[in-house]
Amino acid sequence: MARIVMKFGGTSVADLDRIRNVAKHVKREIDAGHQVAVVVSAMSGKTNELVNWTKEASPMHDAREYDAVVASGEQVTSGLLAITLQSMGVDARSWQGWQIPIETDNAHGAARIKSINGAALVERFEIGQVAVIAGFQGIGPDNRIATLGRGGSDTSAVAIAASVGADRCDIYTDVDGVYTTDPRIEPKAQRLAKISFEEMLEMASLGAKVLQVRSVEMGMVHGVRMFVRSSFTDPDAIDSSEGAVPEGTLICNEDEIVEQQVVTGIAYAKDEAQISLRRVSDKPGVSAAIFGPLSDANINVDMIVQNVSEDGSKTDMTFTVPNTDLDRATEVLEKSLDSIGYEILQSDPGMVKVSVIGIGMRSHAGVAATAFKCLADKGINIRAITTSEIKISILIDEEYAELAVRSLHAVYGLGAD
Amino acid sequence: MARIVMKFGGTSVADLDRIRNVAKHVKREIDAGHQVAVVVSAMSGKTNELVNWTKEASPMHDAREYDAVVASGEQVTSGLLAITLQSMGVDARSWQGWQIPIETDNAHGAARIKSINGAALVERFEIGQVAVIAGFQGIGPDNRIATLGRGGSDTSAVAIAASVGADRCDIYTDVDGVYTTDPRIEPKAQRLAKISFEEMLEMASLGAKVLQVRSVEMGMVHGVRMFVRSSFTDPDAIDSSEGAVPEGTLICNEDEIVEQQVVTGIAYAKDEAQISLRRVSDKPGVSAAIFGPLSDANINVDMIVQNVSEDGSKTDMTFTVPNTDLDRATEVLEKSLDSIGYEILQSDPGMVKVSVIGIGMRSHAGVAATAFKCLADKGINIRAITTSEIKISILIDEEYAELAVRSLHAVYGLGAD
Repeated sequence: MARIVMKFGGTSVADLDRIRNVAKHVKREIDAGHQVAVVVSAMSGKTNELVNWTKEASPMHDAREYDAVVASGEQVTSGLLAITLQSMGVDARSWQGWQIPIETDNAHGAARIKSINGAALVERFEIGQVAVIAGFQGIGPDNRIATLGRGGSDTSAVAIAASVGADRCDIYTDVDGVYTTDPRIEPKAQRLAKISFEEMLEMASLGAKVLQVRSVEMGMVHGVRMFVRSSFTDPDAIDSSEGAVPEGTLICNEDEIVEQQVVTGIAYAKDEAQISLRRVSDKPGVSAAIFGPLSDANINVDMIVQNVSEDGSKTDMTFTVPNTDLDRATEVLEKSLDSIGYEILQSDPGMVKVSVIGIGMRSHAGVAATAFKCLADKGINIRAITTSEIKISILIDEEYAELAVRSLHAVYGLGAD
Repeated sequence: MARIVMKFGGTSVADLDRIRNVAKHVKREIDAGHQVAVVVSAMSGKTNELVNWTKEASPMHDAREYDAVVASGEQVTSGLLAITLQSMGVDARSWQGWQIPIETDNAHGAARIKSINGAALVERFEIGQVAVIAGFQGIGPDNRIATLGRGGSDTSAVAIAASVGADRCDIYTDVDGVYTTDPRIEPKAQRLAKISFEEMLEMASLGAKVLQVRSVEMGMVHGVRMFVRSSFTDPDAIDSSEGAVPEGTLICNEDEIVEQQVVTGIAYAKDEAQISLRRVSDKPGVSAAIFGPLSDANINVDMIVQNVSEDGSKTDMTFTVPNTDLDRATEVLEKSLDSIGYEILQSDPGMVKVSVIGIGMRSHAGVAATAFKCLADKGINIRAITTSEIKISILIDEEYAELAVRSLHAVYGLGAD
């Protein structure tokens, strides 16, 4: 017997037929003797419709009212799934965030979960009842509904799994796991059986849009094992008994991964713009002078590269922003010319960031050198490089994106034969 | 300065344009210096969609889950109206039933309001904030959303008006008031400036579908003056200042109606079926033997006519049921033949009940005689008659419905010139 939280996204509950399919997945786990709580998103498209209505009502709307409107989508699917489960003979009830309660902070529209009273849910486990929980929401200190921001149902699921001490949090989605790279670019990409939280964080934030980044962070902090799997697999064809290994990718602590590969995957992020400030005065406070105003303008700066200047007086500063923010970033930087003190502002919108990720590179030398040589062999020019303990990110021209991903995937031996 | 509860139905909040129109009505009252709480229904069609989803999920569904699903419609419109009001510079916030709270009993799907904590709403009045309240719902003793049954938003509005001691509960709808009869049948029908609760109850339950019957009962019990008016009138063309008399019909205590007419209106209910049991044993308990089984089968019996029998041994019993229940009623009565003991069961599905309503008839003789003579003059045969203190109901063949309504409307002088 295991205690499992199952999370289903919007495409998995898009209509009554799919909700019935979800109910079959849940019933299978119950029939196998497990204790189950389910977290659901709104029907796909529903949240967008509700968000658009709030915008149509007023472009500058009260986030608390936005939350009241938008949270209704999950309320509907939680009730419908509970009804469907009951019709299959499975004891079930729906729970809204305010009923459990899932307490959040007051940041309406992008709230963070502060605490969850798991005791009421555990009581229901004991009597074999399935808790069907509206994802993406909780209740703020003002006694009003607070939503967690887009994709927040993943975070709800992991937080609930932590609060009830679940053995696993199954994230059912429209893909059957996490791959070594995007299979649309590299057909030889392979599904990973396991990946560490740290690696998944890099994969998620670098463009592999399987999971919300915050949910992985939360899984890591609370040690919640997450299992990414497909909701479109035939529910009857899956063995859920103790010890069976269904198709999917387990996200877990690295010590649970026996044979750790040096490189786990190749991620990429398109639509990056590069900005270079030439001959910036190399003095204390100049970074703050550049990035302070950008942050104030809510522009998300990603890679930052600063070279040591030759004579200690002038340096070049390169960084990336999303393409969509390039015009605004340029405007902000031009306004800040006096306080920063640069000579030339150059920018280029057609960039892609390719990243090599692997926890094993901490203990293996030469991983970066392999990547650089690989790209050089294909004639791909490297614009900028940033590295962390477990990843190497390389900025290149967008037109080389697919070639770079495929070449790196091959050079680290990630592909299927 | 008055304290006003404004209620808007589904057609009044059907889309963002109409919600904006509603907001203008609200702003007008605020600008005139009044304290305002608003009660909204779901967008028209939305509740049906949600109800159908619960049926599709399972025909035999848990009423608690039905409530969670269906209540979401009002949650959406309450938030959207609050946002729209804010965009017009009106301080507003949405309230769900569980936030106020509006406490109900546990009869999910058809719950009754037990108490409302009006204090929080009154606090908001003091600071000039508009409370936008999701109608049709409250919270049950099980801490779960409970809906009040179809049309329950009228009842929500009146209950809230009672809890905050409102001067008036304005019911905005798609007609501009209560008429002396259905204007589609009698173009000379006139809008009533005032009607008593008792008369409105008869009008509402007899087929004038302007208001939910329960809301009028509640208005009567708590002395909440209700004002039926149109949401489609141009909000800017209405004078809301103290003492102004906008277009609509006030439902109030009879002592507020100075010039009471003898007859206030003519109502009708189509699709009635007549059932007659001939030569029933005239003994104690026979009525129970007839109507007990019908009640057990959830068949709503309306008019009941029993004549005193000639010799004290046998009598005829006539009553009406909705056409749609006739087959079931017949079946129930045939099964109960032995316990009732009748000789012949006759039925006729093509009936209409026409009613003459007026509080003044309590103190005026001859009102009934006028109706009977009027119908006789037109050659309309009367099948059955029932009377109460303030109404006379007459069962006739359906083909004479319009003629009867128009003739009675004229004979009591209700029409415009």
